[in-house]
Amino acid sequence: MKKRLSSLYHPPTPSYNKRGRLLIVGSVAFDSIQTPFGKINKTLGGSASYFSLAASFFTKPSVVAVVGDDFTDKYRQILEKKKVDLSGLQTAKGKSFHWGGKYSFDLNNRDTLFTHLNVFEHFKPKLSARHKSASHVFLGNIHPKLQLGVLSQIKKPKLVGLDTMNFWIKKTPKELAKILKLADIFVINDSEARELSKEHNLMKAAGKIIAMMKKNPILIIKRGEYGLLMFGKNQIFHLPGFPLEDVIDPTGAGDSFAGGLFGYLSKTGNHSWQNLKRACVAGSVLASFSVEKLGTQRLQEVTRRDIGKRFGEFKRLTHFDNR
Amino acid sequence: MKKRLSSLYHPPTPSYNKRGRLLIVGSVAFDSIQTPFGKINKTLGGSASYFSLAASFFTKPSVVAVVGDDFTDKYRQILEKKKVDLSGLQTAKGKSFHWGGKYSFDLNNRDTLFTHLNVFEHFKPKLSARHKSASHVFLGNIHPKLQLGVLSQIKKPKLVGLDTMNFWIKKTPKELAKILKLADIFVINDSEARELSKEHNLMKAAGKIIAMMKKNPILIIKRGEYGLLMFGKNQIFHLPGFPLEDVIDPTGAGDSFAGGLFGYLSKTGNHSWQNLKRACVAGSVLASFSVEKLGTQRLQEVTRRDIGKRFGEFKRLTHFDNR
Repeated sequence: MKKRLSSLYHPPTPSYNKRGRLLIVGSVAFDSIQTPFGKINKTLGGSASYFSLAASFFTKPSVVAVVGDDFTDKYRQILEKKKVDLSGLQTAKGKSFHWGGKYSFDLNNRDTLFTHLNVFEHFKPKLSARHKSASHVFLGNIHPKLQLGVLSQIKKPKLVGLDTMNFWIKKTPKELAKILKLADIFVINDSEARELSKEHNLMKAAGKIIAMMKKNPILIIKRGEYGLLMFGKNQIFHLPGFPLEDVIDPTGAGDSFAGGLFGYLSKTGNHSWQNLKRACVAGSVLASFSVEKLGTQRLQEVTRRDIGKRFGEFKRLTHFDNR
Repeated sequence: MKKRLSSLYHPPTPSYNKRGRLLIVGSVAFDSIQTPFGKINKTLGGSASYFSLAASFFTKPSVVAVVGDDFTDKYRQILEKKKVDLSGLQTAKGKSFHWGGKYSFDLNNRDTLFTHLNVFEHFKPKLSARHKSASHVFLGNIHPKLQLGVLSQIKKPKLVGLDTMNFWIKKTPKELAKILKLADIFVINDSEARELSKEHNLMKAAGKIIAMMKKNPILIIKRGEYGLLMFGKNQIFHLPGFPLEDVIDPTGAGDSFAGGLFGYLSKTGNHSWQNLKRACVAGSVLASFSVEKLGTQRLQEVTRRDIGKRFGEFKRLTHFDNR
């Protein structure tokens, strides 16, 4: 047991394409963020950026997305430095997707100041032969039709993850219902879970959402600073948010979580309940680092040693029989 | 290790006054409760009632409180049936403390409809020789002056627990500061912690509150359905609320938690960090049962076997390396 634990705390160097080949489709974008602790303009953002940076600590993720011709090498290099495969990142004429947001004093609410879809509006992902053979696929928060379009190109996916948001729950319920039936792991936040299920109690909400999915799926409900609940077949797992004194910028926390989760699963190739729990810890570790600085800064500088250390801290935080 | 675990899951029959003698001072009262799922009129309530019922699964708690002559045998027998020592329960001329409250549809908010202090207004606790020798003392949520008055009568307390509420934080800050310095374990909810520390971030709030206490105290911040954070010397422990499909009545959940916590600590006589964690689980188990029915009904019927079972469920819910 001791050996297994220590290997957990010090995850081995990422081995590429051995167990799994991880593909993420989502947005690569510019973010302009205002928080009570600072602001940053046109920084690297988007779900696929956070996801792939987080996943890069465990495996070599491939990104499928589109950017404009304003997406210069400066941005591209942030991802390439972490060995993220950008061969599926199309460049289209025009401007990159740009999001602007402002957080309330306690970071619990945020206003979207603007959403310029730009080149993303006409995005039609077409996968390369290599990407079609991905084993692990994460369908980031984009139009369910695009998610379906990507998934239909993958030959034999072993594990399909799915994210969505209130907007799609309201606007495209039919398409969402279709993609929901194809996902193995659905990652959603608590307010979205309540909206989708029309149930306030999260346990009941989970039951209803699971009934919309394939047989024996995994549902992960994120609760912000309160952590997450993971639902499996007759099993529930809870993990708190890592207690931090200084949360600077929550942007991308959910995507960093998903990236750590899928990076870990793709790396280990083990989808057992026990390993899913550890993958949730991996995701939460990455999310907890992500929020410590503005934008993706912290994900760029954090080391695998830091990650291993916080893994152990999560255990001390939550276990009550670890003598 | 296996043996220790199984003894946890099946706590032995309460042994009385062996390791510790537990005393609670608080209210014994009538509650009239309205929730979206039902209502109940003039049922047994008050912090000392919930506390002692919860603690009774581990030890034989003594209650110090006052009731009116309308507190008939019917009520008294609920506590006596669980071997709660009522020799310190004074009866005064007049009516018992009576609280009325109404919960919102999602149980997250409640309005106090009335608070009739009645005989409680002139309560001056005077301890018997036996009660003065208590080893474990819990000062329930009453006027800090009364808490000080009770504590000053205890000869050699081994462990002092303290509860309070927003009202005393605002109205009697000096007296509260005094009693805070005498407590070993302070149990408080998150909104109270923020009000007392004037800090929104709970980690910072905890640091400030600990600085108001004696050296190396234990601070437990309760977060309702999200569970709790326990702060010790350079250590933090998190425990989620037990995920329940049907929460019927949150009244007394905090008192049931404190009762399970102190019952367990008094029973085991072990105040180590590891055992404090297990005591938090014991408290959370009792709190999770308490909310499953109106008033104290569920605490009256739950068995030690049920408690042991949920202990194990808490472990499966939170541990990620329990192979």
